[in-house]
Amino acid sequence: MPSPAKVALIVGSPNDLPKVRAATEVLAELEVGYEVVVASAHRTPEKAAVFASGAAEQGIEVIIAGAGLAAHLPGVIAARTTLPVIGVPLSGGSLGGLDALLSVVQMPSGVPVATVGIDAFKNAALLAASILALKDRELADRLRDYRRRTAENAEAEAERKIRELWGAES
Amino acid sequence: MPSPAKVALIVGSPNDLPKVRAATEVLAELEVGYEVVVASAHRTPEKAAVFASGAAEQGIEVIIAGAGLAAHLPGVIAARTTLPVIGVPLSGGSLGGLDALLSVVQMPSGVPVATVGIDAFKNAALLAASILALKDRELADRLRDYRRRTAENAEAEAERKIRELWGAES
Amino acid sequence: MPSPAKVALIVGSPNDLPKVRAATEVLAELEVGYEVVVASAHRTPEKAAVFASGAAEQGIEVIIAGAGLAAHLPGVIAARTTLPVIGVPLSGGSLGGLDALLSVVQMPSGVPVATVGIDAFKNAALLAASILALKDRELADRLRDYRRRTAENAEAEAERKIRELWGAES
Amino acid sequence: MPSPAKVALIVGSPNDLPKVRAATEVLAELEVGYEVVVASAHRTPEKAAVFASGAAEQGIEVIIAGAGLAAHLPGVIAARTTLPVIGVPLSGGSLGGLDALLSVVQMPSGVPVATVGIDAFKNAALLAASILALKDRELADRLRDYRRRTAENAEAEAERKIRELWGAES
Amino acid sequence: MPSPAKVALIVGSPNDLPKVRAATEVLAELEVGYEVVVASAHRTPEKAAVFASGAAEQGIEVIIAGAGLAAHLPGVIAARTTLPVIGVPLSGGSLGGLDALLSVVQMPSGVPVATVGIDAFKNAALLAASILALKDRELADRLRDYRRRTAENAEAEAERKIRELWGAES
Amino acid sequence: MPSPAKVALIVGSPNDLPKVRAATEVLAELEVGYEVVVASAHRTPEKAAVFASGAAEQGIEVIIAGAGLAAHLPGVIAARTTLPVIGVPLSGGSLGGLDALLSVVQMPSGVPVATVGIDAFKNAALLAASILALKDRELADRLRDYRRRTAENAEAEAERKIRELWGAES
Amino acid sequence: MPSPAKVALIVGSPNDLPKVRAATEVLAELEVGYEVVVASAHRTPEKAAVFASGAAEQGIEVIIAGAGLAAHLPGVIAARTTLPVIGVPLSGGSLGGLDALLSVVQMPSGVPVATVGIDAFKNAALLAASILALKDRELADRLRDYRRRTAENAEAEAERKIRELWGAES
Amino acid sequence: MPSPAKVALIVGSPNDLPKVRAATEVLAELEVGYEVVVASAHRTPEKAAVFASGAAEQGIEVIIAGAGLAAHLPGVIAARTTLPVIGVPLSGGSLGGLDALLSVVQMPSGVPVATVGIDAFKNAALLAASILALKDRELADRLRDYRRRTAENAEAEAERKIRELWGAES
Repeated sequence: MPSPAKVALIVGSPNDLPKVRAATEVLAELEVGYEVVVASAHRTPEKAAVFASGAAEQGIEVIIAGAGLAAHLPGVIAARTTLPVIGVPLSGGSLGGLDALLSVVQMPSGVPVATVGIDAFKNAALLAASILALKDRELADRLRDYRRRTAENAEAEAERKIRELWGAES
Repeated sequence: MPSPAKVALIVGSPNDLPKVRAATEVLAELEVGYEVVVASAHRTPEKAAVFASGAAEQGIEVIIAGAGLAAHLPGVIAARTTLPVIGVPLSGGSLGGLDALLSVVQMPSGVPVATVGIDAFKNAALLAASILALKDRELADRLRDYRRRTAENAEAEAERKIRELWGAES
Repeated sequence: MPSPAKVALIVGSPNDLPKVRAATEVLAELEVGYEVVVASAHRTPEKAAVFASGAAEQGIEVIIAGAGLAAHLPGVIAARTTLPVIGVPLSGGSLGGLDALLSVVQMPSGVPVATVGIDAFKNAALLAASILALKDRELADRLRDYRRRTAENAEAEAERKIRELWGAES
Repeated sequence: MPSPAKVALIVGSPNDLPKVRAATEVLAELEVGYEVVVASAHRTPEKAAVFASGAAEQGIEVIIAGAGLAAHLPGVIAARTTLPVIGVPLSGGSLGGLDALLSVVQMPSGVPVATVGIDAFKNAALLAASILALKDRELADRLRDYRRRTAENAEAEAERKIRELWGAES
Repeated sequence: MPSPAKVALIVGSPNDLPKVRAATEVLAELEVGYEVVVASAHRTPEKAAVFASGAAEQGIEVIIAGAGLAAHLPGVIAARTTLPVIGVPLSGGSLGGLDALLSVVQMPSGVPVATVGIDAFKNAALLAASILALKDRELADRLRDYRRRTAENAEAEAERKIRELWGAES
Repeated sequence: MPSPAKVALIVGSPNDLPKVRAATEVLAELEVGYEVVVASAHRTPEKAAVFASGAAEQGIEVIIAGAGLAAHLPGVIAARTTLPVIGVPLSGGSLGGLDALLSVVQMPSGVPVATVGIDAFKNAALLAASILALKDRELADRLRDYRRRTAENAEAEAERKIRELWGAES
Repeated sequence: MPSPAKVALIVGSPNDLPKVRAATEVLAELEVGYEVVVASAHRTPEKAAVFASGAAEQGIEVIIAGAGLAAHLPGVIAARTTLPVIGVPLSGGSLGGLDALLSVVQMPSGVPVATVGIDAFKNAALLAASILALKDRELADRLRDYRRRTAENAEAEAERKIRELWGAES
Repeated sequence: MPSPAKVALIVGSPNDLPKVRAATEVLAELEVGYEVVVASAHRTPEKAAVFASGAAEQGIEVIIAGAGLAAHLPGVIAARTTLPVIGVPLSGGSLGGLDALLSVVQMPSGVPVATVGIDAFKNAALLAASILALKDRELADRLRDYRRRTAENAEAEAERKIRELWGAES
């Protein structure tokens, strides 16, 4: 893993950690240093507050915070730092994540959270990379490469699948 | 206003204060002491945290917290106290308060918020009174009286309106 | 089980009883006496009414009522008592519990229900305990201990999972 | 007004009475006797229960119950009678009546409520008439006449409006 | 099966027929004659129209129509008869039946559909029975018996389950 | 108005006619012949059925059907013709047209309705024109012109507004 | 497969291709030539733009575009052509396709997308055929035959299922 | 206005421009250079594509894109650049902006949009500033000052309003 950590990924519950992997795999591929933290806006608010207040000083530049249900963690983090905070609403619970989406994105005036789609940890990582790339030309290149490769892979996969599904008749 | 304050009412924005009146009028009528606080989960998180952590020591027994949009305040307060916290989702914004309702009520396991209806500050006050009445027999009597009077007033109003609307024909 | 019962837990259908366990386990751990009742707002309304009207006299101080679909039970109970009533919307049916949530929380002016999240029987129990703790200092201590232990357990679990998921690379 | 009352119309709040006029006007036109009652599932549950239990004996054959928000009244009435109960969800509050609709229609197995559209008191009256018409051939004729007249009036109005809006050019 | 058929049950697709069983079992138990029809508002509109127009003459007194998605069948039937039409929104598709519910219940002024809950064929049968019971005293008795038995069975089941779940500790 | 009518525009209620103007203005500008019809799926189902069945023979090639609430009209028309039917959900009622949207678009397998946005009569006309343009090269040219002009007008308006709003400072 | 291709079916991700089969099977049965394309509004926007801009020249007359989540593809295609574009919202993700439905259907004024139901690729094909049938009388005949056969098959299946489910008792 | 422009603000319709002012006022106050562009994903897709592809070269570092209804613009921009794109869903139309929110935030894997709340142009500007502040220490200071001043102003306003509303009695 590249170091030092530029991106901190935080969730409120250990149960949410496996979903975080989708983000850290992208960050690793893009050679962006990261760290993973568990702190709950509700069960360990002090830890969350201390983390958020001190993140900038520890060299963190972007924070990715994921939460489900009444997903307060991204907003609570954003309240304690002026670093950009990316919020990932999670789909736990019986409402498919609509509760988390609204809780993350509808922040009051003055304290924004950069919200990505439900469970979209991978996109959160790409967004973090695009932010960091503003002052890291090599990362910008790696990010463009990543996008290009993704598109090419999808192209190849598409051709394969079209042949598989319609090959005989077309 | 009776004293000392047993109920603290808190909102995050000065704009929400007029709605709080519906609660304080009920509390005044029931002779329950209260205080009104403005502290934002996002703009002044430290003030909100200090208030919540110290509320019990200052004699507060029930906290009523109202918020709109990504309504984090009730949950953020509940994270810092074991006093009962009543949450009032507010209807500001373009989604009619559905965002606030889900943000207030869908708290994660371990930290409940006692949620009432959208904009229901009056019911929040009645719920606070019903909690305090468990150890204040006279308040319990006043609460029952209040309910009875409310019902009687609605009865009288209903008779009047039925006569007005259908009097000629029925 | 501690006695006498201070908390009554009521659901309308025997099928909902297994979910109630999440609440009674917490109450037992906090040494709060409870009883479990089945009475339906629709199939046995008289039983529900008699229960609600007599609960205070039988020493009950907080009522937890759970219901799904057009979840009327919490409101019907609240109409017959001035004890605090905690409502738990249940996720049965095909709408994920959104129907039950709205039916429980959107009570008309004058009769509140303290609503917790969908299927959140555990939080209902913690809310009941926080209410009872206002006049039971030892319960207040046990409640704070419970919260602290929960947080510590989550911390330990988080560390274990982070090692498991990122150990090799970080 | 024809007598005796075959249809009882009930709402929980005097504020809802003006909407009831849309139903009684239809009933009067169809010469169906009716009475209007105000009883709340929450503020005057005993009155609602007594009304529902005794309705059949007093000659009522169909009950129309309207309610907004956590609209429990139709279900609470249906729990105490085997007469057909027609529920009218009302659009009060900030969610456009979606809360009331779900609270009225999603009744548990065993106790149905015949739900009509949001604020659809007129349709409730027509549904009540269609039920009573099963044993009143003359009412059946009047109901068919009413439908035919309604259609004819709409036809005439349509022609007039089309001329008004497109007359010059078509 | 009792005869002649007083209740017609209609769905638009053969795939929906298994759900209809929940209604016919209740009707059989209540000794109410019924018939089952498949006619689609969209694929066989003429058949649906002919059925609806002729139902009253063939002795049908109540029609139960179930449909999913853009559930037009109940309304299309109601447009061609003044018999009471009970609509059952079905939960097929990916929106949990919310689409069907709104399509069935939100009928325009003039043509009501008596809507029951999503997939609630059993309640539809009970509602049909309550309508027919207005002119069949024996059916009224059977309906009340049915309700009483249902309540008693739930009581017994509740006692059994409470013992099973809490027996050891309470 | 150009003739003969190639597009029929149909709504169920005279009240919906003013919204239809947005479509006929576009059709007139594109020199597409049209006619306007009022026929209700519920109040005059026979008229609607006769219209739909005979439309193709009378030279109609595309039908635009608008409806609100439980918006059945587009589907009912589509059931009686194999002409393309464009459905316009209308926003009447208290749910903002979500009910109409789902009722129009969620058609069962076998009978599609080409649905446009809520109240989008103008887009319905453009869609009809794009269909007719497949066999009318001149109409295709006029349609492309129309789009180009629309874009140019928006450009000019944008420049004007940007100057007005930011002119002084930028 | 008939040629040349008159209908182009496009999706943004190879993962969506299997759902496209429901459309191509109908087109093949109706002897309508088609081609299948994968191009993403987001990952390969240039390819999507080039495809859309050039489709008319290559003989394509109708485009069917399917997409899930923030389903931009149909609108993005429609922005670059005046051919009729049929949009198919897909149900991937945790919101059951409501996100995709709104993203596809709520197009701004000026650029319509003919939206069909969630996952309704089959209906998209039938809609495309109904459009092409306006200038191909034989296709119109095949389309009517297809509808008739579908209805007959459903009739036969209905009879079989009714016998199976109610045979013994009716 | 400071120069050169680091932030580009883009909307699809001139009608949306007044809402953009909330963002540019913040940017001006924070001394961040900006430019305002109107380009539609649907009416002028080429202009939007050219703008997005060239933005980075022209010195733009963050793009703020606002759109209502089927709000494709932010995603369409994000597809053509690896700069961070902030999306602002707008509340035009009858669904309160829920359509726009889902269309903006639910981006597919690979191309994120940093979504803020409905109509939250001010928060979009603050988010853009927090991103730019990562490489501009003075901007970081101004941003922290802005937040502090905002909080102080709300404090003062709160005290004033509390005195106004409760002064006499408290």
